[in-house]
Amino acid sequence: MLICKVLKPLVSTNRIPGFEHKHLQVVLDGSAQKVAVDAVGCIPGDWVICVGSSAAREAAGSKSYPSDLTIVGIIDHWDPDADKPEPTIANPPAPGPTPDPTKDGKG
Amino acid sequence: MLICKVLKPLVSTNRIPGFEHKHLQVVLDGSAQKVAVDAVGCIPGDWVICVGSSAAREAAGSKSYPSDLTIVGIIDHWDPDADKPEPTIANPPAPGPTPDPTKDGKG
Amino acid sequence: MLICKVLKPLVSTNRIPGFEHKHLQVVLDGSAQKVAVDAVGCIPGDWVICVGSSAAREAAGSKSYPSDLTIVGIIDHWDPDADKPEPTIANPPAPGPTPDPTKDGKG
Amino acid sequence: MLICKVLKPLVSTNRIPGFEHKHLQVVLDGSAQKVAVDAVGCIPGDWVICVGSSAAREAAGSKSYPSDLTIVGIIDHWDPDADKPEPTIANPPAPGPTPDPTKDGKG
Amino acid sequence: MLICKVLKPLVSTNRIPGFEHKHLQVVLDGSAQKVAVDAVGCIPGDWVICVGSSAAREAAGSKSYPSDLTIVGIIDHWDPDADKPEPTIANPPAPGPTPDPTKDGKG
Repeated sequence: MLICKVLKPLVSTNRIPGFEHKHLQVVLDGSAQKVAVDAVGCIPGDWVICVGSSAAREAAGSKSYPSDLTIVGIIDHWDPDADKPEPTIANPPAPGPTPDPTKDGKG
Repeated sequence: MLICKVLKPLVSTNRIPGFEHKHLQVVLDGSAQKVAVDAVGCIPGDWVICVGSSAAREAAGSKSYPSDLTIVGIIDHWDPDADKPEPTIANPPAPGPTPDPTKDGKG
Repeated sequence: MLICKVLKPLVSTNRIPGFEHKHLQVVLDGSAQKVAVDAVGCIPGDWVICVGSSAAREAAGSKSYPSDLTIVGIIDHWDPDADKPEPTIANPPAPGPTPDPTKDGKG
Repeated sequence: MLICKVLKPLVSTNRIPGFEHKHLQVVLDGSAQKVAVDAVGCIPGDWVICVGSSAAREAAGSKSYPSDLTIVGIIDHWDPDADKPEPTIANPPAPGPTPDPTKDGKG
Repeated sequence: MLICKVLKPLVSTNRIPGFEHKHLQVVLDGSAQKVAVDAVGCIPGDWVICVGSSAAREAAGSKSYPSDLTIVGIIDHWDPDADKPEPTIANPPAPGPTPDPTKDGKG
């Protein structure tokens, strides 16, 4: 599964009926923007787990749902810069601000 | 799903019968050109959502349709340069507005 | 689907029985060489459409055929340099020669 | 299958019910961090085999499990720097410390 | 399918039962090391065809086998440097030594 950041909802009026009423979110996977079906109810700024391949379909609700990327969980705490192999930096910048603290878990 | 730009239709006279009469479009995924089956009726210049993996097959019409990339929706409004991580800028703009604080849980 | 150029047939005497008698072709996907099952009858120099994922299997003949990349169509006319985002070039080279005109469709 | 290094467990309170009680691990695939379902019981520092595609599902327990990356084995001995095509280095650094010796296999 | 070079067998004592007794090989796909299930009986130094996606499963023996990469054939003759788009080189090095001549096909 991928670790992605939710950017914003995506509106597509002209789409195949198979998508039904489910929400689509633009997510950031590394530096690439992708579209994922939202199965958990997330908001922009959330760090989420996205499942791909055929598993994205059942995760979105049914074996025949036409998704290849589905948001299946919101990560409780995620520091995108932790655990990364880092290049040598002479003067590292100060740590960034804390992510949105108003998030509350649902379900 | 991928966010792609439609470039032009693709003509392939000598192709397997399984493709039937469906239209093929050349789409741009980042800097790579790919071929997608058009399930919504789009035109060159449209920004579209493309689904891959096994979901591309049912999205194209049936479980046995031989597609691995199907156009499943036309995006209403898309600015390809928005929300991208940007290279180092001497005078960064002021931080953007806070993400939607009215989030409510669903499900 | 991918747009690939056919390079040459591939011979593999010691292979699993599941491949049957089908022809394998070495194709060029960007700068990477891959192997595809030939379902249309193509020759070196052809620009072809290759389907991957689970769709490659039925495209090669049956649901249980062990292919993850199958040539499903020969593109009528393809200019690999058209429609690409191009770097600034002071003096672009003259257009290349026309692709092999001796190609004839089979099947 | 991928050869990955286990970094740490991942906590996602708000996730789809389909994940059940299975453990999720953050793994390092080259320089990319991904999330995998743990089917063998591994600990941070382990070098593991991760299976993707539709095989990740049955490997995680059932045909309908929503995983696209599942840890299916712990590698007995792995030297990440062996067998790699290496760039020319004038004075290579001394070999790093032995990986975590507190690892114990489970299951 | 991918064209890979076999590097060495991989030993994983603690692995899921689904792998049964099949051999695993570390293979080189370009510059990335991956693990593949050996369905043909190959040895280090062999150039092989590896199939991925869901086709890797049946190629490894059954629809439910948990592989996403299976070695399905040994290539009779392979020159990794042939047919590659090459950078301009003033004085190309002499051709390398012939690959391991002790290879013998099995099965």
